[in-house]
Amino acid sequence: MDQPVSIMNSIITMITDFGTNDHYVGVMKGVVLGINPDATIVDISHGVRQQDIRQGAYLLRSSYRYFPPGTIHLVVIDPGVGSTRKPIIIETKNYYFVGPDNGVLYTAACDDGIKQAYEISDKSWMLKDVSHTFHGRDIFSPTAAYLSRGRDPSKYNEKLDTVVKMQFPTASVQSKKIQGEVITSDRFGNLVTNIRARHIDRLEKQAKGRLLVRIGNDVIEGLSTSYAQVKVGQLLAIIGSSGLLEISVNQGKASDRYSSQAEEPTYVEVIIE
Amino acid sequence: MDQPVSIMNSIITMITDFGTNDHYVGVMKGVVLGINPDATIVDISHGVRQQDIRQGAYLLRSSYRYFPPGTIHLVVIDPGVGSTRKPIIIETKNYYFVGPDNGVLYTAACDDGIKQAYEISDKSWMLKDVSHTFHGRDIFSPTAAYLSRGRDPSKYNEKLDTVVKMQFPTASVQSKKIQGEVITSDRFGNLVTNIRARHIDRLEKQAKGRLLVRIGNDVIEGLSTSYAQVKVGQLLAIIGSSGLLEISVNQGKASDRYSSQAEEPTYVEVIIE
Amino acid sequence: MDQPVSIMNSIITMITDFGTNDHYVGVMKGVVLGINPDATIVDISHGVRQQDIRQGAYLLRSSYRYFPPGTIHLVVIDPGVGSTRKPIIIETKNYYFVGPDNGVLYTAACDDGIKQAYEISDKSWMLKDVSHTFHGRDIFSPTAAYLSRGRDPSKYNEKLDTVVKMQFPTASVQSKKIQGEVITSDRFGNLVTNIRARHIDRLEKQAKGRLLVRIGNDVIEGLSTSYAQVKVGQLLAIIGSSGLLEISVNQGKASDRYSSQAEEPTYVEVIIE
Repeated sequence: MDQPVSIMNSIITMITDFGTNDHYVGVMKGVVLGINPDATIVDISHGVRQQDIRQGAYLLRSSYRYFPPGTIHLVVIDPGVGSTRKPIIIETKNYYFVGPDNGVLYTAACDDGIKQAYEISDKSWMLKDVSHTFHGRDIFSPTAAYLSRGRDPSKYNEKLDTVVKMQFPTASVQSKKIQGEVITSDRFGNLVTNIRARHIDRLEKQAKGRLLVRIGNDVIEGLSTSYAQVKVGQLLAIIGSSGLLEISVNQGKASDRYSSQAEEPTYVEVIIE
Repeated sequence: MDQPVSIMNSIITMITDFGTNDHYVGVMKGVVLGINPDATIVDISHGVRQQDIRQGAYLLRSSYRYFPPGTIHLVVIDPGVGSTRKPIIIETKNYYFVGPDNGVLYTAACDDGIKQAYEISDKSWMLKDVSHTFHGRDIFSPTAAYLSRGRDPSKYNEKLDTVVKMQFPTASVQSKKIQGEVITSDRFGNLVTNIRARHIDRLEKQAKGRLLVRIGNDVIEGLSTSYAQVKVGQLLAIIGSSGLLEISVNQGKASDRYSSQAEEPTYVEVIIE
Repeated sequence: MDQPVSIMNSIITMITDFGTNDHYVGVMKGVVLGINPDATIVDISHGVRQQDIRQGAYLLRSSYRYFPPGTIHLVVIDPGVGSTRKPIIIETKNYYFVGPDNGVLYTAACDDGIKQAYEISDKSWMLKDVSHTFHGRDIFSPTAAYLSRGRDPSKYNEKLDTVVKMQFPTASVQSKKIQGEVITSDRFGNLVTNIRARHIDRLEKQAKGRLLVRIGNDVIEGLSTSYAQVKVGQLLAIIGSSGLLEISVNQGKASDRYSSQAEEPTYVEVIIE
């Protein structure tokens, strides 16, 4: 089962921590279009916090599956650029993932089903001159562009037996309680937890009673199905668009109450009482 | 006159309050490209202040007409997502507008000439699973993509007799005076008013004398035709690119003197003296 | 040698100081697509500091050559809009550059080799109504779109003998020392200098000894080839992705120590001792 992804398209998505004020992202796109003028490039985010591999991994895992099969997902969150970390391609059931071997591609690739990983090792997949500091331009963009033209990833590249792993903490599901934590927040101040809708479904089947959600000193009764169900400024718990429990404030920001970037995790509990 | 817009193209524009750091906009584009790989997607703005329907409406009205006929304008400023507000298509003389029925589409659609509005009611226009919180992904993007493939909006959707209206305050034009107000400001700190160039033309035909523009305690004599006509740091009045009177500072920000987001409107008067 | 650029493509890049919250950039794209629906538009940056011609010129010079020959580079940093500054096309060996004649296009165009400059003078290259304040929409975007359709730039436009020049300060290369300065910084806080890799190569051939880099009160020994070569938080000197010496901090921001936007230049010396 290591043929190339069969349904090809020429869509390349990009996730980086480069921001959009500098020229770096534009240059990557120029390199792609120089190799494949028919590529369709889609920005997922260039606003990842600098060198935050975990945030990059979260965005990739939350978005990859909404693209048609054959899409090439390019991620450049690369604190180790120029060091010994490998540039890699991961071929999964439906997609290619291209980026540094530092875990940023791992959870998404796992989720789709890894078929084979490759080290980008042959110069025919790179620009002629490879800098020390900008592999997004010199290695990852040309690789994505060649893949989008249908080039077989095994061509000249070295198969890898293993890649660097990175996993999010998982929620602990008990008989009458789920213990999880906040894994990220978004522009609206919604706090995204690692507690899945199906965890809660199972809990509700196991135990009868009121469902309570605890975060810090707050207790929320039941789940809402829209922000507008509670008063403006009031805290609510809702299943978000990724199938994860989120803590929100109607027309406000839950992240103003609970920072998700602190050193200490923000714990969240779902309880049947 | 309710045939579909006759000149089709596959351009879809997007205005949202999602920002570009999260994955939401990228996911919407993935959904569009999964349905219509030939769609050309153009970002107008994802930096609308959160849930600011008025600002979204302003950006849409200021930009829609610069796109070729048949363009589909997708707007997701949607504080009522998951509640009873309807998802709608408005077909106008030259365009389709897609978004929530909360007024955000109204002034632009009116300006072009509304032919027919539809509630997006049939599941064939949506993703299979519709979340409570992200109709941009689950309803509006697929709808825009199907429209861009030429699907007739009346297909399975319900015709609406009326949609939610939202209008900007209009300037009051009197014999020797126009009274208006600031409706928005831009990155350059230009204050955009609701006083139209043609209001001022009419005033100047009716009355003879010096033209003065009053804002707060400032009085500006006459209109400039370029920022460089006044000294650096000096206040000026100019007809802006949308045909509206704007108050600016040459190489500075008029918005630093007069906030346009305060609760109280900032009034502006044009007087012939 | 003043035939039009022979290898055509339909890529148009954009650099502006318009930001992405307002509708201005979207409107420019609408105008382009109305004239050439097949154009591929690539954003380099819309986050140039307002009216900062120097920063715009830097981004253009750092990115233009990564695009395929025939690409049209559109730059709108235009403090003199509406005044007497000319709208121009510069045709170079491989590209077209379109923007105001204020120097912003000059260093990139020079670097590629100027063949001929034109004043955009005929109305057939513009929108029907030209505003005082938004030539990005009314002149530059239509011009870029017509060029992308293969229209000869000499058609109706006036040849210019000269354009406004703008150069970056150059480093002074001496027998045992190079004196340069910081010309910009990026999102990662890397300080980009005007000292080229080949200047340093030459210095090292001329003189034997330890290489030291001096900035303010700091002295850095030798050049790194990756950020990870020094401890987290430590200052390093490295040849950046544009072939220029950069001062960085591993997983930190050198720009926090040395502002690159101050009135006074930040000097950098490379010394053989």
